[in-house]
Amino acid sequence: MTTTTPNSQPKRFTPQTKGVRKDFRRPRPFGRGKQEELERSTDSLPPLEDGNIRIIHLGGVEEVGRNMSMIEYKDTILLVDCGVQFTETHTPGIDFILPNTKYIEDRKHKIKGLLVTHGHLDHIGAIPYIMPRVGNPPLFARLFTSLMIKKRQEEFPQNDPLTINVVEKGESVTLGDLRVRFFGVTHAIPDSMGLIIETPHGDIVHTGDLRLDHDDGVPTQEEEERYKLFENRNVLLLMTDSTNCENPGFSISDRVVYRNIESVIRETPGRLIVSTFASQVERMLYMLETAERYGKKVVVEGRSMKTNVEVAKLANMLKVNPETLIPIEDLGKYPESKVVILATGAQGEEFAALGRIANKTHKFIRLSKRDTILMSSSVVPGNERAVQNLKDKLSRQGAHLIHYKTSDVHSSGHANHDELQWIHRKIHPKFFIPIHGYHYMLRVHADIERKLGMPEENMIIPDNGMIIEIQNNGETLTQLKEMAPHDLIVVDGMTIGKIQEVVMRDRQALAEDGMFVVIGVIDSRTKTLKKSPDLISRGFVYLKESQDLLYQTRALTKKVIDDSLLKSDQVDLDDIKQSIADVTGKFLLQKTAKRPVIIPVLITI
Amino acid sequence: MTTTTPNSQPKRFTPQTKGVRKDFRRPRPFGRGKQEELERSTDSLPPLEDGNIRIIHLGGVEEVGRNMSMIEYKDTILLVDCGVQFTETHTPGIDFILPNTKYIEDRKHKIKGLLVTHGHLDHIGAIPYIMPRVGNPPLFARLFTSLMIKKRQEEFPQNDPLTINVVEKGESVTLGDLRVRFFGVTHAIPDSMGLIIETPHGDIVHTGDLRLDHDDGVPTQEEEERYKLFENRNVLLLMTDSTNCENPGFSISDRVVYRNIESVIRETPGRLIVSTFASQVERMLYMLETAERYGKKVVVEGRSMKTNVEVAKLANMLKVNPETLIPIEDLGKYPESKVVILATGAQGEEFAALGRIANKTHKFIRLSKRDTILMSSSVVPGNERAVQNLKDKLSRQGAHLIHYKTSDVHSSGHANHDELQWIHRKIHPKFFIPIHGYHYMLRVHADIERKLGMPEENMIIPDNGMIIEIQNNGETLTQLKEMAPHDLIVVDGMTIGKIQEVVMRDRQALAEDGMFVVIGVIDSRTKTLKKSPDLISRGFVYLKESQDLLYQTRALTKKVIDDSLLKSDQVDLDDIKQSIADVTGKFLLQKTAKRPVIIPVLITI
Repeated sequence: MTTTTPNSQPKRFTPQTKGVRKDFRRPRPFGRGKQEELERSTDSLPPLEDGNIRIIHLGGVEEVGRNMSMIEYKDTILLVDCGVQFTETHTPGIDFILPNTKYIEDRKHKIKGLLVTHGHLDHIGAIPYIMPRVGNPPLFARLFTSLMIKKRQEEFPQNDPLTINVVEKGESVTLGDLRVRFFGVTHAIPDSMGLIIETPHGDIVHTGDLRLDHDDGVPTQEEEERYKLFENRNVLLLMTDSTNCENPGFSISDRVVYRNIESVIRETPGRLIVSTFASQVERMLYMLETAERYGKKVVVEGRSMKTNVEVAKLANMLKVNPETLIPIEDLGKYPESKVVILATGAQGEEFAALGRIANKTHKFIRLSKRDTILMSSSVVPGNERAVQNLKDKLSRQGAHLIHYKTSDVHSSGHANHDELQWIHRKIHPKFFIPIHGYHYMLRVHADIERKLGMPEENMIIPDNGMIIEIQNNGETLTQLKEMAPHDLIVVDGMTIGKIQEVVMRDRQALAEDGMFVVIGVIDSRTKTLKKSPDLISRGFVYLKESQDLLYQTRALTKKVIDDSLLKSDQVDLDDIKQSIADVTGKFLLQKTAKRPVIIPVLITI
Repeated sequence: MTTTTPNSQPKRFTPQTKGVRKDFRRPRPFGRGKQEELERSTDSLPPLEDGNIRIIHLGGVEEVGRNMSMIEYKDTILLVDCGVQFTETHTPGIDFILPNTKYIEDRKHKIKGLLVTHGHLDHIGAIPYIMPRVGNPPLFARLFTSLMIKKRQEEFPQNDPLTINVVEKGESVTLGDLRVRFFGVTHAIPDSMGLIIETPHGDIVHTGDLRLDHDDGVPTQEEEERYKLFENRNVLLLMTDSTNCENPGFSISDRVVYRNIESVIRETPGRLIVSTFASQVERMLYMLETAERYGKKVVVEGRSMKTNVEVAKLANMLKVNPETLIPIEDLGKYPESKVVILATGAQGEEFAALGRIANKTHKFIRLSKRDTILMSSSVVPGNERAVQNLKDKLSRQGAHLIHYKTSDVHSSGHANHDELQWIHRKIHPKFFIPIHGYHYMLRVHADIERKLGMPEENMIIPDNGMIIEIQNNGETLTQLKEMAPHDLIVVDGMTIGKIQEVVMRDRQALAEDGMFVVIGVIDSRTKTLKKSPDLISRGFVYLKESQDLLYQTRALTKKVIDDSLLKSDQVDLDDIKQSIADVTGKFLLQKTAKRPVIIPVLITI
């Protein structure tokens, strides 16, 4: 195998803990002190001059996820999308990362609306967390999106109800000092749309996520028609999706994917289990219709799939007969050749439908050699091992697997490089800000406009919180030197707030090397240890098999405490704790090559 | 973006800790008890009958890595390779996973040699850990491999010296009751070889890792010549590399990769920084030669790159003039257009050369817009975020990036599906055991032989520890129902041994939700708490901002202890600890939706 040598890297140093109850008492580097400072800072930002347009990306331009943009003009703030990002490797245990909305919280009286481009979680997932903080402004979304938002809102019954205005492509609304026109785009979920925000200096176009419908790299007539809209428009600024712009050419056409899925459904002799991303709603609906066309019954298994079917039904987009969908309990009533199961869990999620099938813990489904499993999805980075494990377990039971590596049964909802180039040509903006992606993706995206001839000064590659303005009656695109707040805001269980770096660092250290508690009881009268210190470890090396190490460590900590107590008249517990942490940490590192988090506990009686 | 909803998954349940010092006192589910049982078990395995051949894979057939195979015949055991696997998501903090060698430790008197196919760590990395346990048998390897083994051995000065016999392709050696012939194969590192183990029933062919040298899917004349060897041989069993067999067609030809790298070296106007896998030794040597051909000086930066150059020099494979290689301190003496820097760190390793350049902490190199960075590597699964971060930081400094997504500047050392098919045809074995890969990869590999007409009963898809025998004078391939020991053996700092599931579980739990220590001091005379319990948390939610929670938890634990002390005459510390863990865990879960590892500490005075 081709690998690098991780052991060539110096080990991360775990800062040794000092105090203990201090966790609760002393200010921390990222504690309230800094937060207050940051909270004050948005008032000191330069005010927006009349006639200028201010644009801030509150998330989504240094990562894939937590998309949220703000456009401010005169007394109007418009928001676009409000998504979550799932946890990153450097945020262990975190549920979601949210856009940082401090800037708009301080200006909530100006917010005229949140425009939502489509119903994926990285565009709607933060709505329940953010709306209460910004005065619960009205939402504008197309039907399917509005239903996805409502569905998610059900999980937050304590929240005030949302005001959702259902809009359609071709429509426009006036919001404060701005007018917004909606247009349809192709993505993976129904009712995806882009926005044309009309300003006196020209249009600001925000496309949301998109791709092109095409045959072998030739966009369809429908796409051609759709983008004719821009032929005679004066587009001041374009902001569009960079997620897949590193991928050359055109993405695999959905038509090819559909054709392949159809042939799998048609030709599978036995039972067919199909798994796709829950976000691939259009494909899921296509699968349902195709199964019906070939006279098959469909079981929908897993929460997010069921939600999608439910929402599609509400949106009047479910075009199959009710009797095509059968409850899982009826699976046995039909011949295997007549059954398709749509299941969640293609990313290897342990408790999703496919995971339970793989683990033989599914209540109704056991695999056999006659079964076929179609994994119509790619592997989300970070899930490789889980997906490999899933494939191993499924194939162990004899099932035949079909997946994206061996057939074109999946295509992403995001445009590749040449699709974006085509879109840029059609929209022909004066200014360009690439969005939705990691920094390098945005740079590659900027190269597209550069090659089309846009001058360098007409493009800005944004960071989260960067304040960008269109000034001089639409003549210049400028980055202010000031930044809006952009610290990571996270959902960690029920806690929502700035990321606590110290907590993240501790979790990472604990995950690698575990922890080691040293407990000493000191007689304050005699200034001596009452007995030999107690030691506790978790996630550290297995001490049962190294009693020696345990005895040595105990003796060592005893000596450290004894020596410290002898040294001075005043008993300084913090000093003793520091010594315990230093000496024990060093000793354990030397003996085990591990750096557990050391927690000294001293009790005086 | 296209994602699934992780919040649809139930949360993992963290088993609450009970005792504390018990960590050191009580038997654990995976403690010595079980280990002893397993250690006894290999004596009770059925003995090998005379004339039969036994094959056990001690690692590498349920994963990519820790490759090691055993072939046993009469009084002879031959070992093939001895590699490590890097840590998996379910083994946090672990340095390496080793092959489980219990079976051969119990039969070390029969071991006649370890045959090493090539010098990558997943084939040689476990030698320093395993050789001392199996009686330090003689090694057989080609020159470059032998030098890589020696280099690694230098890191283990306490070990007995190895006996390494340098062999060449075309040669053969007799080892006990078996004769082994070596043949060359194409891989990413010089001197890769396959083995033909001659038995009375026919040849056992073990290819090690390999790919084919080809032009547009037509293997070169050299490959044709090489595999002619098998035309008239009676191949009983083939065991070969499954790593890339899921990839369709032929892999990108190395000739294409070389051509592209050459044109980058030729055409880059400024400084060129090239990064590749340290394991891609042949490519690295090609880069050196090409740089010299275009009159450029080369700096080699990073430990593993330097090691490779050193080993290549020792092996007499370094074909550049000494003055082509310049020390990094002399970088400034040459025009930027005349400098190529070979750097480690294409996987985003923070402290590797490229990582330090990205972080602006490199002692000699600061990037500018005139620099080009060629990343001649793919992304190892699990490293996506780190590599993205690296690309973001490098491109932020204006450097131009070239990588495998946008140009063919990397190809793996492992054969794709159609290459393997070609190899199978040439070797035409009677029996087949796919090796080197996760289970599903092995299944896909088995399909190749199935399609070539091999009967089902002539193939076995192995697991680690599965005992496979060729019986009936080479007529049948059989799997015994008994298994050789196959628990995970890990290197965790300086500890080497069976994986301690309890330690892994603790680390995972600590990484997600942190820990929470409750300390109570009990007066054993009055059977009362001396004062309100102390609380410590690490990696849990940030309590500074929720003083309320802290006070409530303190009051709760106090009540639990008070109540328990009142309840009975006997003070049962374990019972009280259990109550603290249960009650506090439940309370914190309810208040924070987190499940910290709870550690109750009770001190009686």
